[in-house]
Amino acid sequence: MLSPSEQSPADGGFRHRLHTIIFEADTPAGKAFDVALLWAIVFSIIAVMLESVAAMREQYGSVLRAVEWFFTALFTVEYVLRIIAVRRPFLYMRSFFGLVDLLAILPTLLSILIPGAQSLLVVRVLRLLRIFRVLKLAHLLGQAEILITALRASRPKITVFLGTVLTIVVITGALMYVIEGGNNGFDSIPRAMYWAIVTVTTVGFGDITPKTMLGQFVASVLMVMGYGIIAVPTGIVSVELAAATRHAVDTRACLGCGVQGHDLDASHCKYCGHSL
Amino acid sequence: MLSPSEQSPADGGFRHRLHTIIFEADTPAGKAFDVALLWAIVFSIIAVMLESVAAMREQYGSVLRAVEWFFTALFTVEYVLRIIAVRRPFLYMRSFFGLVDLLAILPTLLSILIPGAQSLLVVRVLRLLRIFRVLKLAHLLGQAEILITALRASRPKITVFLGTVLTIVVITGALMYVIEGGNNGFDSIPRAMYWAIVTVTTVGFGDITPKTMLGQFVASVLMVMGYGIIAVPTGIVSVELAAATRHAVDTRACLGCGVQGHDLDASHCKYCGHSL
Amino acid sequence: MLSPSEQSPADGGFRHRLHTIIFEADTPAGKAFDVALLWAIVFSIIAVMLESVAAMREQYGSVLRAVEWFFTALFTVEYVLRIIAVRRPFLYMRSFFGLVDLLAILPTLLSILIPGAQSLLVVRVLRLLRIFRVLKLAHLLGQAEILITALRASRPKITVFLGTVLTIVVITGALMYVIEGGNNGFDSIPRAMYWAIVTVTTVGFGDITPKTMLGQFVASVLMVMGYGIIAVPTGIVSVELAAATRHAVDTRACLGCGVQGHDLDASHCKYCGHSL
Amino acid sequence: MLSPSEQSPADGGFRHRLHTIIFEADTPAGKAFDVALLWAIVFSIIAVMLESVAAMREQYGSVLRAVEWFFTALFTVEYVLRIIAVRRPFLYMRSFFGLVDLLAILPTLLSILIPGAQSLLVVRVLRLLRIFRVLKLAHLLGQAEILITALRASRPKITVFLGTVLTIVVITGALMYVIEGGNNGFDSIPRAMYWAIVTVTTVGFGDITPKTMLGQFVASVLMVMGYGIIAVPTGIVSVELAAATRHAVDTRACLGCGVQGHDLDASHCKYCGHSL
Repeated sequence: MLSPSEQSPADGGFRHRLHTIIFEADTPAGKAFDVALLWAIVFSIIAVMLESVAAMREQYGSVLRAVEWFFTALFTVEYVLRIIAVRRPFLYMRSFFGLVDLLAILPTLLSILIPGAQSLLVVRVLRLLRIFRVLKLAHLLGQAEILITALRASRPKITVFLGTVLTIVVITGALMYVIEGGNNGFDSIPRAMYWAIVTVTTVGFGDITPKTMLGQFVASVLMVMGYGIIAVPTGIVSVELAAATRHAVDTRACLGCGVQGHDLDASHCKYCGHSL
Repeated sequence: MLSPSEQSPADGGFRHRLHTIIFEADTPAGKAFDVALLWAIVFSIIAVMLESVAAMREQYGSVLRAVEWFFTALFTVEYVLRIIAVRRPFLYMRSFFGLVDLLAILPTLLSILIPGAQSLLVVRVLRLLRIFRVLKLAHLLGQAEILITALRASRPKITVFLGTVLTIVVITGALMYVIEGGNNGFDSIPRAMYWAIVTVTTVGFGDITPKTMLGQFVASVLMVMGYGIIAVPTGIVSVELAAATRHAVDTRACLGCGVQGHDLDASHCKYCGHSL
Repeated sequence: MLSPSEQSPADGGFRHRLHTIIFEADTPAGKAFDVALLWAIVFSIIAVMLESVAAMREQYGSVLRAVEWFFTALFTVEYVLRIIAVRRPFLYMRSFFGLVDLLAILPTLLSILIPGAQSLLVVRVLRLLRIFRVLKLAHLLGQAEILITALRASRPKITVFLGTVLTIVVITGALMYVIEGGNNGFDSIPRAMYWAIVTVTTVGFGDITPKTMLGQFVASVLMVMGYGIIAVPTGIVSVELAAATRHAVDTRACLGCGVQGHDLDASHCKYCGHSL
Repeated sequence: MLSPSEQSPADGGFRHRLHTIIFEADTPAGKAFDVALLWAIVFSIIAVMLESVAAMREQYGSVLRAVEWFFTALFTVEYVLRIIAVRRPFLYMRSFFGLVDLLAILPTLLSILIPGAQSLLVVRVLRLLRIFRVLKLAHLLGQAEILITALRASRPKITVFLGTVLTIVVITGALMYVIEGGNNGFDSIPRAMYWAIVTVTTVGFGDITPKTMLGQFVASVLMVMGYGIIAVPTGIVSVELAAATRHAVDTRACLGCGVQGHDLDASHCKYCGHSL
């Protein structure tokens, strides 16, 4: 996110036009740039994925490396253009998306200097985050905002809820570590806690399972609790989402005091009593 | 779905009667036809299923083949009658249900010409989709419409939600590919993404599971996130369903006080008593 | 459930008193009888469970058999008393709870006549259903009624929903049967459908899992769908439960027309407009 | 929970000041004490966890033991101070948190006297519960109260629901015990019930799975039921949470039209404009 001062047009016409194309989406050129960027991101991610498949790497290794260099070159040019386009380059470079833009090209560039930095290549997957910068295109933003409002309003309740779940996990984990012991896979409290999380969230991998009668009883209690517990965040989000939707729907402003945010069924302003 | 012009009765009395029986359900003959079709579809699907069981195929192979040919003949006759009954046969044949009707008979008919086309036989399962054409019988349609309205209204929110889930899956997948590596089953990013989807949706097959301490920690975070994330679509659908149900109920506003949201059976406003 | 005529007191004082004790719970004796019955049911179920554990059967076999005969004798006496207490014994014997009462004692009684009928003994677990007859004790009945009202109101929507899920399961099952084949465990369409149900309900046993890239992709789509699909019944039940609760809360009757079932926030009768 | 008389300041100034610091959080010293206690609890729990990991115990065993003794000393001093600070020490010692405080130090102190009491050490994990005593710090309490109100109001419905689930689990368990038998892992009714709970809660470990066609069919029915059943507690909690949130908001009724349910910040009725 860039501050307003940064987004204001540069004096020079070139920098101004560049800024409009790269950072805005309200001109045809800006829109085309965003769409092209979207596809470049998607294809470069697919290339990274394919490269991680051994069979693909062996057969099409050189093609994939060429594709990778093509996209890295593209993103590097884009990164340089972005630095040129903004008034305060350092502010941009230190912003969240500035760092993501840099991380998208750095691993491949570094792989020339440091030959062994193969595992760094996975960092390129973070390119995916750049998609969210293009999302300003979409009319989905209003919906995303409602969701975020609902989740933010739910935060204190969710915190209490997660605290309770964590307490259950720690205590059940310790209990199962004593009951089942290392022979049945519960060989430390952290591992038993991992099992408790797998169980309470109803994921149930089955890599560690209770073998003793008592352990299976404790697991049963935990599962039924998890089953009931899952109802709580759902209820929380439903209620907050209903509130966020209700408040988002009506955009009438009171004629008496000018305040907005009235409920859909309100016929009078709830602050001054003026008819809406 | 057929266009109105197509559904209008043919001039000839025979075609008109045929159309009424096959495409409509408001006459006794039309109703009987639909019910017979429903059972024919169900039994032919069961026959296809039984044929796929090796033990059944060996023992009752010839019976099942006879049953299959019986239903194929039946559906072929029905398909030809449908073509005759409609005014514009090509429009019908290119419609969704026209294609499904064709796919229901084609595999068996083709198996005479091309002997090796055994795997095509599974396509016959698509006959099941024909059941939805008979559903016009049921009084369930109004309910289905409320559900579809709710889901359609939820679409933008669900899109944002699925986008977020996909981002989490890609990044966690890449992370686990680096942390766990091929020895523990995470042998490519796509496979690690498959694992991440199995985990975040709380399915948890357990065919691939993290073995390292760090991997189990990342998995725990992912599971708790998936646990919370599942609350979001539920909340979305609940809210939209409540809205769809309410709107299906009534949209009258009181003439006395202007409040909306009255029950369908209300004849007076519940707030001021004014006649609706 | 017994018809009113059946529950009316018998002329003879003894049968009347017996009926009050056994079938009603509003006298101290009736209450005591119900509580005693509750514990007898619970203990007899626990005995059946323990008997199924091999180690228990070997060590305490004779004790468990004695306990079993004690409870069978008790329930047989109770069954006979119930037949005596009601006016129309055959109506009682053919009612749902009459059959359950018979099934609770029959397996043990039959095991004298037919020595090999061991597997029948599991039928005794149905004794558990008798608990619901005692539930009339509890103040929970009103709550159960709200739940049942909500579920009944949801039935058409749930039917549409289950139909959609079944269609998805059949088609995905057939698809996976072709893609994965018998070598990976998908050796028939019914088995592949079993896998599809395990997956779409997010249970995920992991006894059958896709091994091919394409199969894992189809599974991923199915899992994400199942994740979203689970939102639908929850939304349905939430909305209907909210309606059932709202209607259940207010018990005011209109002074003008006598109709009940007004919303909590209603100040006027919605049928005649009279002030409440 | 301490009674008011206990929390009233002691006559002596020292005991009064001690009480304010240890039990209250409205002075700077009291706040600092709570924060310090919070961190001490977290770190001592982490130490207990690390000690349970074999590799950690071998390498850093002496450090961990030293850390453990440090925290035990700290908590012992705190426990003694708490006893001094309150007027009625025995009431405190018998209260819930008094017992937790004792259990937090007892295992380590006992390990000197009884050398073999290693498994007792896990009891130290209960220290985690002490965090809830510090939670009075937080502004989360209001939110926790709404959650607890909602859950308490849901209790009768949840009881009915759990009773139904338990009945399904017992009957399905007995059924699967007969169908699958000991060879497929269902070697007793309790174990088959454990499997039924694992399945109906959609956890699905996969340690026990049905192998026969009939068993897989019963499992499928159970899974779809579990899928639908999970909707019920979610619906219950959503509805009660909505009610609890609404009531937390406001209970004012309009003097003009009598309608309730106004927002907290409303000064005029939104239906008729009358001042509240």
